[in-house]
Amino acid sequence: MTHQRSKPGIPVYRQVYLRFRQSIEDGRLLPGERVPSVRALAAELNLARGTVESAYQLLIGEGFLQARGSAGTVVSHQLKPASQSSPVERPQLHSICVMHSGAEPSPLQLGLPAMDVFPRKLWNRLVGKEIRESGLNSLVYPDTRGYLPLRMAVASYLAISRGVNCATEQVFICAGYGATLDLIFRSLLKKGDQCWFENPGYIMARQFLKEAGVQLIPVPVDADGLNVGAGIRIAPNARIAVVTPSHQSPLGISLSLHRREALIEWANRQRSWIIEDDYDSEYRYQGHPLAALKSIDTQDRVLYTGTFSKVLAPGLRISYLVVPRKLVSRFTNMADIMQNHCPQLLQATVATFIRDGHFARHLRKMRSLYAHRRSLLIDALRSELGENIQIDIKEGGMHLLLRLRNGFQDKQIALNAKKLGFSVLALSAAYLNIKGEQGLLVGFTNVSSEKLAAEWAKSLAIAFVPYHLPR
Amino acid sequence: MTHQRSKPGIPVYRQVYLRFRQSIEDGRLLPGERVPSVRALAAELNLARGTVESAYQLLIGEGFLQARGSAGTVVSHQLKPASQSSPVERPQLHSICVMHSGAEPSPLQLGLPAMDVFPRKLWNRLVGKEIRESGLNSLVYPDTRGYLPLRMAVASYLAISRGVNCATEQVFICAGYGATLDLIFRSLLKKGDQCWFENPGYIMARQFLKEAGVQLIPVPVDADGLNVGAGIRIAPNARIAVVTPSHQSPLGISLSLHRREALIEWANRQRSWIIEDDYDSEYRYQGHPLAALKSIDTQDRVLYTGTFSKVLAPGLRISYLVVPRKLVSRFTNMADIMQNHCPQLLQATVATFIRDGHFARHLRKMRSLYAHRRSLLIDALRSELGENIQIDIKEGGMHLLLRLRNGFQDKQIALNAKKLGFSVLALSAAYLNIKGEQGLLVGFTNVSSEKLAAEWAKSLAIAFVPYHLPR
Repeated sequence: MTHQRSKPGIPVYRQVYLRFRQSIEDGRLLPGERVPSVRALAAELNLARGTVESAYQLLIGEGFLQARGSAGTVVSHQLKPASQSSPVERPQLHSICVMHSGAEPSPLQLGLPAMDVFPRKLWNRLVGKEIRESGLNSLVYPDTRGYLPLRMAVASYLAISRGVNCATEQVFICAGYGATLDLIFRSLLKKGDQCWFENPGYIMARQFLKEAGVQLIPVPVDADGLNVGAGIRIAPNARIAVVTPSHQSPLGISLSLHRREALIEWANRQRSWIIEDDYDSEYRYQGHPLAALKSIDTQDRVLYTGTFSKVLAPGLRISYLVVPRKLVSRFTNMADIMQNHCPQLLQATVATFIRDGHFARHLRKMRSLYAHRRSLLIDALRSELGENIQIDIKEGGMHLLLRLRNGFQDKQIALNAKKLGFSVLALSAAYLNIKGEQGLLVGFTNVSSEKLAAEWAKSLAIAFVPYHLPR
Repeated sequence: MTHQRSKPGIPVYRQVYLRFRQSIEDGRLLPGERVPSVRALAAELNLARGTVESAYQLLIGEGFLQARGSAGTVVSHQLKPASQSSPVERPQLHSICVMHSGAEPSPLQLGLPAMDVFPRKLWNRLVGKEIRESGLNSLVYPDTRGYLPLRMAVASYLAISRGVNCATEQVFICAGYGATLDLIFRSLLKKGDQCWFENPGYIMARQFLKEAGVQLIPVPVDADGLNVGAGIRIAPNARIAVVTPSHQSPLGISLSLHRREALIEWANRQRSWIIEDDYDSEYRYQGHPLAALKSIDTQDRVLYTGTFSKVLAPGLRISYLVVPRKLVSRFTNMADIMQNHCPQLLQATVATFIRDGHFARHLRKMRSLYAHRRSLLIDALRSELGENIQIDIKEGGMHLLLRLRNGFQDKQIALNAKKLGFSVLALSAAYLNIKGEQGLLVGFTNVSSEKLAAEWAKSLAIAFVPYHLPR
């Protein structure tokens, strides 16, 4: 067994070790309880015996297990008190959402583009060129609306690719989707304003809006996307709706044309606003991308948002926002007050990257790469997890939804997987107020080989092993 | 006359032109009113006749003035309607605060370090090295608390230079002072909370806090800095106080030791918080910098903030915050929710810049340079503005306060100066609720030569010429 890839991921023997240790600390394995034999567990997990043997040795060495010869191996009677189990953990949010902690990508990490194929040399060359040529401009206060050439590049990209026609002055650059929401919230909303929010929805946005004091109105999502009729019944006078029409986050559904029209009609009638989060619309593997909701927004009620985090790299911290014409002045003032600044160096490099055609090439390349990686992961997961999951395959996006069968609880599986080094998410955590469906959201963008797909699928399968032996 | 430096600044003939045009558009010069002769105005402004002649020709050519031969030159009777006077203006804030618009530094711009001596080659080399060596890490989501090596570098810098002893985990990196305030506000405050705010105070912070919904309690500043006793009388139970103890913003006063102790004692007693904005403490030209207020904060009530905008370059968008130990977990959670991200590339470069000793060298160099530039500007202003101003000289900082005499109104002068291309600020705009004192705040960091000092002082003098001829 030579699975010991140190990055990303954790050696398999250590994953087994961690899984046991956690079960013991959580009280799911009790002192005196007998654990499976090395041979039986190796067979169950389809691992080499040496791998399981190493894990058991470590557990015995640290006093979690005791070897009793022919009586088998049991959980020790003298255990350390349950405490903070892992030194890398941070409080509170961990159980439900993927953290952004500056670490290298985790296996199956959600929402992260394929960093292994990011055109680093080209990018570094462009940054270097920009830094030499930009003079003082990249060092003084950046324009709070964003760097003009990037705003222009975004406006023309959106016109060509997304059917969004806007003037450059309507485009604002922000430091990521959170900053975009902040600018919108401060410019348009006040505490207690009602906001339609997809249920299930994007957890980061939900946390941000909740913290800002918005009254989130969960609106169910069905096979056609956001159920606009339900939204109207629940909160007809909501001030704003946040939607992901291209690939509903997290279900991956496209909002149907009928629903799009109904949503726009509602906003026009109520003079409410719509935030269109078009976060990964560029990735669609079957058929053509739908034009943005914004493209049918004749009365200018839609605030269109996108980000370079999903299509280039999140480390750039660059997102964009198109505001209705009549709001330009209001958003400009608020951008000044908030000091809505992104370092110009990176904005300028992205502008060049787009202008010189690298962006379009990169997207094309990623589209075919992701289609391939997705299929690798699907095959590997089906092979390792078999009937425990059913894979929901949608037209696009950057993650798969694995529906859980056989009574597996997604939060528990996600927690187990996290302890094994994965960054995956429980679908039920994306629901507000209701229990929601059971599923696991897994990213496929970083599955860089068939071998890795197999390895990760095998590791993920460990998260599904209950270790609850019948007493 | 060959003052035609295109950047920064505006040719003098054009400044004269703009000044007249504005007076006409504002109605301070009325149709039919006679303007001074070229010779008289040239003498009054100490300019070459050709300069004034050029300005008048332009005004006549555009129809603002009419030449009437021996009857002199008068304001035209057919004027364009008063409209948006300048296409570069943005609404609302402009009259009171320096805008951050991505432009090159303006003459006498406030709060901007000397960009002409920024060590660009060294910096570019470090960025280049970082980008080559950082691998994927600079491209994935940055740590929401900040890049660890930078947090470590800040912690040791603060211990050595500012007497602030803190653990690395107490240090957070934010994208500028606005982002720092935002993190503090969301972590500690709620709408309506009372906040002591220096009167006069830092306008950017005031706008930000006001927008966030804090109840600002103006507390007078006297020769010892913030009047703590007055604060206690006005709002004894305020939840927080925002102070600039090293160089009060904008008056430049150091908070006296007695007041520091009283402030800390109040916060301890009330269990209130203090935000210490130590924005340019590094610059002190007489005597030694005082240790930070935080250094005497035995009960951990002070949130210490600083920024690299003033000592390196604002374009980096990097500031830092030291939070009390007991708040680390709360701030960590909030940083996650807010997605408090700064691009790692620039954070890492600053960390290297500090670690390799460049930062300490840069500060030393800037200290002596600024002392020199300050004296250049003082001499030039005294020579050109004479008894119209009295210069308030403090121990440190990056700007001068010109007290206005002879009945000049600072907001009008600041507006005039802005139209001439300057970024200066009216002192009275920094007061909340009261009329405040009259003065002009001018930056000296970019006064790169004696010649430039003379040129800018001469141009600034134009902002003081009333052009109100006796009728």
